[in-house]
Amino acid sequence: MKITIDDLEKFATGAAFLGTGGGGDPYLGKLFIQNTLERSGAPEIIHPDQLSDNDNVFSVAMMGAPSVLIEKMLSMEDVHLAVSKLEAHTGKQATAIIPAEVGGINATLPVAYAAWRGIPVVDADGMGRCFPALEMTTFNVLGVDATPMSLVNEHAEWSLLSCNSALSAEHTARPIVSHWGGSAIVSLYPMSGRQVKDTAVAETLSLSLGIGEAILNPSDKVDPVERLLAFLRTTKYYNQCATLFDGKIIDLVRKTEDGWNIGYCHLEALTDPERRMEVMFQNEFLIARENGKIVTIVPDLISIVDRETAQPITTESLRYGQRVKVIGASAAPIMRTPKALAVFGPQAFGLADNFVPIETLQLKNEQGV
Amino acid sequence: MKITIDDLEKFATGAAFLGTGGGGDPYLGKLFIQNTLERSGAPEIIHPDQLSDNDNVFSVAMMGAPSVLIEKMLSMEDVHLAVSKLEAHTGKQATAIIPAEVGGINATLPVAYAAWRGIPVVDADGMGRCFPALEMTTFNVLGVDATPMSLVNEHAEWSLLSCNSALSAEHTARPIVSHWGGSAIVSLYPMSGRQVKDTAVAETLSLSLGIGEAILNPSDKVDPVERLLAFLRTTKYYNQCATLFDGKIIDLVRKTEDGWNIGYCHLEALTDPERRMEVMFQNEFLIARENGKIVTIVPDLISIVDRETAQPITTESLRYGQRVKVIGASAAPIMRTPKALAVFGPQAFGLADNFVPIETLQLKNEQGV
Repeated sequence: MKITIDDLEKFATGAAFLGTGGGGDPYLGKLFIQNTLERSGAPEIIHPDQLSDNDNVFSVAMMGAPSVLIEKMLSMEDVHLAVSKLEAHTGKQATAIIPAEVGGINATLPVAYAAWRGIPVVDADGMGRCFPALEMTTFNVLGVDATPMSLVNEHAEWSLLSCNSALSAEHTARPIVSHWGGSAIVSLYPMSGRQVKDTAVAETLSLSLGIGEAILNPSDKVDPVERLLAFLRTTKYYNQCATLFDGKIIDLVRKTEDGWNIGYCHLEALTDPERRMEVMFQNEFLIARENGKIVTIVPDLISIVDRETAQPITTESLRYGQRVKVIGASAAPIMRTPKALAVFGPQAFGLADNFVPIETLQLKNEQGV
Repeated sequence: MKITIDDLEKFATGAAFLGTGGGGDPYLGKLFIQNTLERSGAPEIIHPDQLSDNDNVFSVAMMGAPSVLIEKMLSMEDVHLAVSKLEAHTGKQATAIIPAEVGGINATLPVAYAAWRGIPVVDADGMGRCFPALEMTTFNVLGVDATPMSLVNEHAEWSLLSCNSALSAEHTARPIVSHWGGSAIVSLYPMSGRQVKDTAVAETLSLSLGIGEAILNPSDKVDPVERLLAFLRTTKYYNQCATLFDGKIIDLVRKTEDGWNIGYCHLEALTDPERRMEVMFQNEFLIARENGKIVTIVPDLISIVDRETAQPITTESLRYGQRVKVIGASAAPIMRTPKALAVFGPQAFGLADNFVPIETLQLKNEQGV
C-alpha cells in the first residue's frame, strides 16, 4: 500500500471521519503532508506483520486543543526534534513510525514524517480513532509504557518525561502543553515491532483511505453518506454503523479548557422538530442521545458529517444552523474489552452511563425498549 | 571551612534567616543533613576561587511551596536521580555542588548531597538569600543558562527541560511541580568553575553559619537580636541592617497558590498600638511598610524573628499573636544592579514600588521625608 499525492485528499478526509470530531482541520493536515510528499516522495506503508520483532517503532502526534492547531503551523524540524530527543534518550534509532491515533492531523503527521525520514510507517495505530488523552491507547491497555516521551514546542523548547503510568504521563504533560499555548509535538510509546503486533489496532491507515474514497468517489450517483455506510459495512471492525440523526444544529456550546475543546451541540431533526439530539464532546464526540436516550457512546465512534457531501465536521468547525448527519460506528473488539473500557470507556470521561455497543443500542431503540 | 554535625543547628538557623521567610522549615533541614553527615562525614566546603575553570558544578534545590516540604520528606536517592539525569544528558560528571539559594532547606540540601557524593560544595549561591522563582538568580542575570534542568518527584518520575530562557524554564517547570503535588527536586544551571566565579554570590554558606552562631551563642548575655545585628554589621554585604519593627502579629492571610505560599501579615508595635507594619510575601518576604511607608523592599532582605531568641520564623510558621522583630538587611551589590533588579526587583513580583536601598529608606524615614 502507498499513499501518494493523489490520495491525500481522500486520506485526510477519511482521517477526519475517524477523528470523530477531533484531530484538527483535515485541510491543514492535507496541506502539511502534501508539502512533505512533494519533496520526499510517498512513504512505504507496511502492515504490522511486516515488522521484525526488534524493530524500533516511534509514534509522533500533536498534543493539545485542535482549535490551537489551526493557528500554529507544524514544522517538520519540530517533529524531528521530538523524535530525535527520544531516540537519543533511549539509545535507539527509529526503524519505523506509527500513528498514536489515526484521526485528523495525527494520521497525516506520522505519514509525512516517515516520508521525510525515509523510513516506513506502520498501517496501524493505538485506537482506530481519536481520543483526547494520551493514556487512551491500546498500547497502554496492553502494557506498553507511554514514557519515556518527548514534548517539543514551536520555539524548539523541549521536555523529556519518565512517569510510572500513562495516566501520570498525561497529567504531567498536559500542564506543559497548556503553558506552551495549547499545543506541542510529542513522541511517546517507543516500542518494539513485537509490541506493535501485540497491541496496535491494525490496518487503520488503509481504512482511512478507504473511507475517504467512499466519501469523495466522483463516479457514483449514490448519496455520499450512503456510500460511506456501505463501505463501513465491508470493514472488519466498523461494520455496525448507522445514520443516527439527520438534522440541523440549533445550539452549540464550546470552550477551550485545560487544553481541550469541551462542549456539546444540540440538533433538531429536519423532518420532525420534536426529535432532538445532543452530542457531547471533549475534543472528540463522546455520547449521542436522542430525546434523552443514548444511541452511541464512547469508545464506539460518533462522527458528524455534512448531510449532502458526507464531509466530516470537526468540533471546532461546528456552526449554528449547519445541516448535518450524525454517524455512529462500532469500535474494534480490542477497544471494547473491560480492560480497554477502564481506560477509555464512558467513566474515563466522567460520564455516568455504561458502555453499550451501538448494535445493542440500535436493536433496543428499534424495539422501543 | 567545614560544616560538622556540631555546626548543623547553627548552620540551619542562619540559613533560615537568609531564607527571609522561605526555604522551608529549618528543623527539617537540620534533620536531613544530620542524617547524611552521620553516614558520610562532613563535606569539603570550597571557596569559588578554589574551583578550576573547567570544573563541572551542578546545583540542587527543592522547588515548590515550603508548606508542602513539611509534609513530603526528602530522600537522597531522589536528589541523586535529579543530578544524575542531568549528568547523563550533559555528558558531564559533577565535580562540585553549588546551592542555587542559600536559604532554608535549599542551603542544607546541597551540603548534604555533596557529603553523600563525596565531592566539595561551593561556598556561594545564586542570590545570597531565597527567591520564589527559578529565573531569580545572579547566574541568570549574568548569562548562565538555567536549562537543561531536571525535575524529580517522590515516585522517581522525572522530567528534563530545555528552554530558551530561565523565565520560560520557570513557567514550564512550575505547572509540573504543581501537578506533582507542589514540590520537586531540581538540578539546574549546570555550569563551569569559571561561570561560578563570574556569577555567584560568594561566601554565603560561611555567612549562614556565622549568622547562626550569632543567634545561638550561649556564652553571651547580650540580646540575641542585637548579637545578630552586630554580626551582620561585620559582613561584606549585609552590613546595612536594622530592626524594622518590634511587635505582635494581629492579622495573617496565607494561601497556597500556583505552588507558592502567598499572603501578608500585619503587626502592631508592642509599645504603641498606633504603629502598624504590613509585610507581604510570596514564599519570601517582599516588602515591609510601616503605616504605609516602605522600610525595606526586595531584593534587600526582610526576616521575621522571635523577639526573645532571634530564631527566624518562616512564612508558614507565622501565627496570630506571635511577638516578633522584623529585621531588614542590604542585599549584595551584585543583587542591586539595574540588570539584577529587572529579574528580581519589586516589579518582577508585580509590586508598583521601585527599589530603594534599605540604608536610603532608613535615612529618609529618620529625617521624616
